[in-house]
Amino acid sequence: MLPRGNYAFVMHKLPIGVLGASGYAGRELVALALRHPRLELAFAAAHGRAGARARIAGREITYVAAEEAPLGDAALVFSALPHGASARYVAAARAAGAKVVDLSADLRPGAAPAPAAAAALGDVPYGLTEVARDAVRGADVVANPGCYPTATLLALLPLLERDLVAPGATISVAAASGVTGAGNSPRGDLLYAEVAEDFRAYAAGNAHRHVAEMRSVVERYGADADLVFTPHLLPVARGILATIVVPVRESLAAPLDLWRARYAGEPFVEVSDELPTLRDVVHRNVVRITAMPAQHVRRPAVVVIAAIDNLVKGAAGQAMQNANLQLGLDEPLGLPT
Amino acid sequence: MLPRGNYAFVMHKLPIGVLGASGYAGRELVALALRHPRLELAFAAAHGRAGARARIAGREITYVAAEEAPLGDAALVFSALPHGASARYVAAARAAGAKVVDLSADLRPGAAPAPAAAAALGDVPYGLTEVARDAVRGADVVANPGCYPTATLLALLPLLERDLVAPGATISVAAASGVTGAGNSPRGDLLYAEVAEDFRAYAAGNAHRHVAEMRSVVERYGADADLVFTPHLLPVARGILATIVVPVRESLAAPLDLWRARYAGEPFVEVSDELPTLRDVVHRNVVRITAMPAQHVRRPAVVVIAAIDNLVKGAAGQAMQNANLQLGLDEPLGLPT
Amino acid sequence: MLPRGNYAFVMHKLPIGVLGASGYAGRELVALALRHPRLELAFAAAHGRAGARARIAGREITYVAAEEAPLGDAALVFSALPHGASARYVAAARAAGAKVVDLSADLRPGAAPAPAAAAALGDVPYGLTEVARDAVRGADVVANPGCYPTATLLALLPLLERDLVAPGATISVAAASGVTGAGNSPRGDLLYAEVAEDFRAYAAGNAHRHVAEMRSVVERYGADADLVFTPHLLPVARGILATIVVPVRESLAAPLDLWRARYAGEPFVEVSDELPTLRDVVHRNVVRITAMPAQHVRRPAVVVIAAIDNLVKGAAGQAMQNANLQLGLDEPLGLPT
Amino acid sequence: MLPRGNYAFVMHKLPIGVLGASGYAGRELVALALRHPRLELAFAAAHGRAGARARIAGREITYVAAEEAPLGDAALVFSALPHGASARYVAAARAAGAKVVDLSADLRPGAAPAPAAAAALGDVPYGLTEVARDAVRGADVVANPGCYPTATLLALLPLLERDLVAPGATISVAAASGVTGAGNSPRGDLLYAEVAEDFRAYAAGNAHRHVAEMRSVVERYGADADLVFTPHLLPVARGILATIVVPVRESLAAPLDLWRARYAGEPFVEVSDELPTLRDVVHRNVVRITAMPAQHVRRPAVVVIAAIDNLVKGAAGQAMQNANLQLGLDEPLGLPT
Repeated sequence: MLPRGNYAFVMHKLPIGVLGASGYAGRELVALALRHPRLELAFAAAHGRAGARARIAGREITYVAAEEAPLGDAALVFSALPHGASARYVAAARAAGAKVVDLSADLRPGAAPAPAAAAALGDVPYGLTEVARDAVRGADVVANPGCYPTATLLALLPLLERDLVAPGATISVAAASGVTGAGNSPRGDLLYAEVAEDFRAYAAGNAHRHVAEMRSVVERYGADADLVFTPHLLPVARGILATIVVPVRESLAAPLDLWRARYAGEPFVEVSDELPTLRDVVHRNVVRITAMPAQHVRRPAVVVIAAIDNLVKGAAGQAMQNANLQLGLDEPLGLPT
Repeated sequence: MLPRGNYAFVMHKLPIGVLGASGYAGRELVALALRHPRLELAFAAAHGRAGARARIAGREITYVAAEEAPLGDAALVFSALPHGASARYVAAARAAGAKVVDLSADLRPGAAPAPAAAAALGDVPYGLTEVARDAVRGADVVANPGCYPTATLLALLPLLERDLVAPGATISVAAASGVTGAGNSPRGDLLYAEVAEDFRAYAAGNAHRHVAEMRSVVERYGADADLVFTPHLLPVARGILATIVVPVRESLAAPLDLWRARYAGEPFVEVSDELPTLRDVVHRNVVRITAMPAQHVRRPAVVVIAAIDNLVKGAAGQAMQNANLQLGLDEPLGLPT
Repeated sequence: MLPRGNYAFVMHKLPIGVLGASGYAGRELVALALRHPRLELAFAAAHGRAGARARIAGREITYVAAEEAPLGDAALVFSALPHGASARYVAAARAAGAKVVDLSADLRPGAAPAPAAAAALGDVPYGLTEVARDAVRGADVVANPGCYPTATLLALLPLLERDLVAPGATISVAAASGVTGAGNSPRGDLLYAEVAEDFRAYAAGNAHRHVAEMRSVVERYGADADLVFTPHLLPVARGILATIVVPVRESLAAPLDLWRARYAGEPFVEVSDELPTLRDVVHRNVVRITAMPAQHVRRPAVVVIAAIDNLVKGAAGQAMQNANLQLGLDEPLGLPT
Repeated sequence: MLPRGNYAFVMHKLPIGVLGASGYAGRELVALALRHPRLELAFAAAHGRAGARARIAGREITYVAAEEAPLGDAALVFSALPHGASARYVAAARAAGAKVVDLSADLRPGAAPAPAAAAALGDVPYGLTEVARDAVRGADVVANPGCYPTATLLALLPLLERDLVAPGATISVAAASGVTGAGNSPRGDLLYAEVAEDFRAYAAGNAHRHVAEMRSVVERYGADADLVFTPHLLPVARGILATIVVPVRESLAAPLDLWRARYAGEPFVEVSDELPTLRDVVHRNVVRITAMPAQHVRRPAVVVIAAIDNLVKGAAGQAMQNANLQLGLDEPLGLPT
């Protein structure tokens, strides 16, 4: 939209590749890469779809097979492959000289069972960018957080860092996700007629894979607290809302100040007086958070509510924050706010 | 569907009236009354709709104005009038000799401010039928519980009655309701385009009117526990799902047995190994409950999940259970399971 | 709900079986059979689900494999098997002595290619019940109409029977169906996230299988008219709305009278002054129709709009009308209106 | 996202104002203006909302009252006021020296009754931009087409311009719109619970206001054809799909070539082999069109299907195309494709 001739120089673009590029998160990664001012798409690989075309962000791309992806052509590879299948591709990309952001659970803390290939890669930074920025900058491999942990941990962080959780507390996290969180493989229980006008919990009682990931992080802060996480399936396409009840050591008259202070200057964290909704955040790389004291209680508790787009801040967008840092670019480059 | 002449006698039908009959709960009451084998509709009153017609349950009815409703023609009056407006109609119906089920909050425990007319009526049974059956039977006036309290309290009851809640516990109730819970008055924020593909909390931090109602009941059991209640608005028409995390005194290996024992023989309570969904309960007068221990915790906690149709078990259906008991009929009469 | 002892006799129940009982239409058939006062379920067969259980209409059933279904135990078999696979089961059921309602396209007029087994069965009545009642009564095998043809043909019938379609006319049928019309096999394009907030035509240009079925029937009436049929996929679970524009020979001031006259006394056809909506008809065995003249035109045309539940009047419900007639029972028995 | 200092000059921005800026189309106009490289927002006026704030496109704006809008501060005013109320504001804006795009029906062909203020303005170009580009360029006032006419007329245009419609034909237009087409004023029939899982026709029989607008344009081409238009309400927020059946003079083996030829080089018209869906076009300023011959007919007919976002190409986006032309800017400036 700018008149021609306005640029004094041509910017060099770095090639990136996407593995698992036909899934919802993979397509979002491709879209971000295509719009990124300093990146260009080296390849988009999708299992069983070699040669197939897709229209993403107004451009037509052709998939290659994952096993034939030219990993060495990329400065950085995003892996959005399924859990368990990802780690060995991460290793292969490293061997080919590419940096990697792994969006699977394979390299995250608490991953169980950790794939053999993951062990060989050693510890890698857990890329909750707002917390781990220094470790991510320049890193060869980053484990991108899960969608639920991103919303939950960014919401809890100010309380954890200041050791405000009441000793012995049970923290309840009730989170609800749109159906893209379950991927786009055909599943009878995710058909429109099965999901519309319904709402359900799943993996209740701390049975979800993300619980170990969240507990690992919470424990780093030394809080003597349990986390009880209940995910739910929403009849919406995108978005996660996490509603978190935290018993705290002492009454906090204006708890939101904690979040404002912690996240001052963060481009992708919105602290708000108003209750965040999915609509506030979909298609944007932000987490939107509010917090308030619980009224009418004898022991103080804080209610924290956070919303993200599960495919953007909860997956591809945060992955791009990390990739930018790994490649030495400005963290916000190419990200929609 | 039965051949004519099969009946040896004509059953006497009792006349009932419905105030607030054009709202979602009111229409549901009219539908239940029209299908009830022992009740007949004396009148359906709706503010500002006198003379208007509606088709309900395959029958055409004509509304009368609330102030002109022939209260004395009814053996029992259901009031589905708005909170604050209901109590004086309850008093008028009593004065006219009718029994009453009040679906508003006016006569419920914790109502604030209690309308003047409510004070004059004195204490009336809180019609959580599975708990208060004896007090309801034959009662002149019953305060029908709110939709969220019905789901929440029936879910918590087995733990409260056995004093299993951990002392000092913070109980988290995250509940989500379909939009009919907000009534059918035109509101910009409830338009389709505002609700679809969104999800949000509201009245967070224990700001919802139902908190006082729930706390009043919980306190009767003497539990030293706080309740933190967060309601959410779902993009579905009907149904409530309540996800409740309860720190408990001791580990419960098979907590569901408590619910099975407490609700054995109850026609409108389904205790299930499977996670209940809205689809399981809509258009049915049941609460469906499951419970399980939280794994990976240092202090024991139980997750209890309950689903109801907010307009049936959460409003009109429970009201009909109560009405049947007040009128000396079988409690399940005319109710869909 | 009736007191025991009220019945003077025990009614004999006829055993029926359902093939393809795990699909949407098959489950609806099972539900209708379980609630039917004169039928009982002999078996429910589902491919690849032998031994699996399902809860339908409040009852738990166990599937048998289709190839092991005890066809001879049934007085009548409903086949809701896929097109192409159904005809040989119809033949087998006949050989075992059962009457059959075939819900597939195999035996319908215009079926192409007609399966070999279909040819052996010869011509069977096309069970558009309101038209073919006499042929269906007592018939051994009936071809149940498709969902779109049911709505379209019942809407067009009064014009066709009276030869009112303008010679040389192009009749446009734009019909939209809920996603259950596509069945419940897992398909990526029918996932919630792909269907919600979208709307699309498919098989446009008369490429849909149902076109031949509709044309065959229209041609029986000798109309010199073309039919152009465009189906659409709606983001709803159930229901079909067909909007039909018909150039007519002459102006019809009150065209709805034609429909009222034609369908007087029909229990499952509702002719209405108001525009029918899906909500009017879902879960009911009715077609609801209106018609009106097009204003502001130089040559007269009538707009006819019809709504059905694709799984009830468009499949299982009409099948039950036919089954009742085949078995000598009252046509409306066991059908929800 | 560009490094500072990259621009050699500061571009002059033209001030524009929006009347009716709190409705769906008005908000879309404000969003487009805020993102436009050569426009800036002079005011956003909304009836009864003076002083209220809204967050649009990431910016906070404050509404002024329509009657106090500083019309003279704007180089161009968009009026998204209701039909009947708009024309006198158009006149006032003209008197204050501003150019105007009127999104209401007041100045469109066929408007009935034409407001008095409209008569005083005389004939103004009907801004179907792809047809009327020359008349719009530099014009003082433009009547922006309705949403349904935009989709329908752009779809029909290649057939009309080449006189290919069969003489005496009845053209059927079945169009379905998302609920934002009805505006965001509170209405009971547009509540989520009333719209979800439903689908309905409205204003059938050519009773919709847009019929006169479409007929006026069709008649300019001299076609001896009737148009029968049936709009429907979809349970989606945004988008219009129009399915059009056109009897044609002669068989067209590859009708899509006509559309490709007519719209070659048009930035906002996508001619596609694939059937367009709402998802293809929402949030984009495009009409997406396909066409194909009807098979199995005796007289040739073409099916044309067009999709637009009713708020973008069907309202604010097309208005911006026109505004750009009126102001001497490049037509595509500031428009999302």
